[in-house]
Amino acid sequence: MNDKPSVIRETDDEARRLARVLVRAARYVALAVIDPDTGFPYVSRVLVATDSDGAPAILVSNLSAHTKALSADTRCSLLAGEPGKGDPLAHPRISVQCVAEAVERDSDVYKRLRTRFITRHPKSKLYIDFPDFRFYRLVPQGASLNGGFGKAYILPAEDLMITGYSETDFAGREEEALQELVVRVPDIAERLAGQLGGLSPKKWRICGLDAAGIDLISGDSALRWEFQHPVRRLEDVYLGLPN
Amino acid sequence: MNDKPSVIRETDDEARRLARVLVRAARYVALAVIDPDTGFPYVSRVLVATDSDGAPAILVSNLSAHTKALSADTRCSLLAGEPGKGDPLAHPRISVQCVAEAVERDSDVYKRLRTRFITRHPKSKLYIDFPDFRFYRLVPQGASLNGGFGKAYILPAEDLMITGYSETDFAGREEEALQELVVRVPDIAERLAGQLGGLSPKKWRICGLDAAGIDLISGDSALRWEFQHPVRRLEDVYLGLPN
Repeated sequence: MNDKPSVIRETDDEARRLARVLVRAARYVALAVIDPDTGFPYVSRVLVATDSDGAPAILVSNLSAHTKALSADTRCSLLAGEPGKGDPLAHPRISVQCVAEAVERDSDVYKRLRTRFITRHPKSKLYIDFPDFRFYRLVPQGASLNGGFGKAYILPAEDLMITGYSETDFAGREEEALQELVVRVPDIAERLAGQLGGLSPKKWRICGLDAAGIDLISGDSALRWEFQHPVRRLEDVYLGLPN
Repeated sequence: MNDKPSVIRETDDEARRLARVLVRAARYVALAVIDPDTGFPYVSRVLVATDSDGAPAILVSNLSAHTKALSADTRCSLLAGEPGKGDPLAHPRISVQCVAEAVERDSDVYKRLRTRFITRHPKSKLYIDFPDFRFYRLVPQGASLNGGFGKAYILPAEDLMITGYSETDFAGREEEALQELVVRVPDIAERLAGQLGGLSPKKWRICGLDAAGIDLISGDSALRWEFQHPVRRLEDVYLGLPN
């Protein structure tokens, strides 16, 4: 929404970091589209991964209601951030308005997303190559962050985007770079998860790398490690790791 | 969506029961509205309770983006049903298209909803009477149920509505009726929760009664006990209790 009532706080670095982590650590989101037949909004649940430029990406069946809606009207909105214990409204969440971009099969973007999606959602291997499944990139246009009671922020799209991926020395060879990270720092996943306070009965593994951070996954839990500063070289990733 | 691809199953009583329980056991939902400024969908999280006729009801601030949107366009959609362990898409959820009805303060509906909302969300007592808060009833127009992979159903609005509340002998005296139930069957909440497989570290309590069932709550968990048949007398509730 464009108006800015007085309850909206000034966006600071902490709010921007929270917004990014909510979107990038999400395994699934509520996705709202517009039903082309009725004009009603329509909200459903979809799995999500983040593309290297920060755009959330979804893998959907052509038979699904949201795919039909997005083919007719690319405007959509996603809600990320799940409640934990206690009052659901005390837990941070973010609403992001997006424009959906259908991804061409056999494009470089498709290959990159396929890899990122499978490392994040290993079970998607079972259907990711079905001919009726496709990716959409949900390109952020703006967002509303609610960090808990009285902590509302409006963010422009650029706060959620990641720049400079194509200039990194791991662009296009992300899987290899992730393997290199694990070879050089075998406990990297556990170490980052520990710093982030991540609890899981299963082992953590790193499942995504971009210029702004590392994605971690363990069973039903996901985490996002944001770098202090964007990186250009894999070497910079090591230098920025916590002790 | 109005078209019905072949992947949609025929709706049976089990699907109808699942749909009702998902909506009526929800403590919160993702609510999608249409942003009046941009035409984009906008999805955010709201607490929810069910009115005696089955319509979900939300308590929202006039300052919130969804309230402004609903004032301009009453069409909305909610997503109920939270994932548990494992694949998020294996867990049942329901998307309900609704028309929002603003509830007048000091109306009978308002009084009923205020009571139902507070018994379900005790902390809402802190702000429910603030002058900028209001109730909306989200009157179902139709729904899509996804019971897990390959289990998709389309439901008409009437499958989610509850009829005959005003003819029950507990209409307008629901709190009293709940107390009577507990006096006559002191372990009623634990007994119903046990039958429903409800696990919670805290004690269960009954927090809602209508012609179609009983709502239960315990800390962060909520359950819905659906009667075998709709009831008209409190006496019928006892007769239908599990042993």
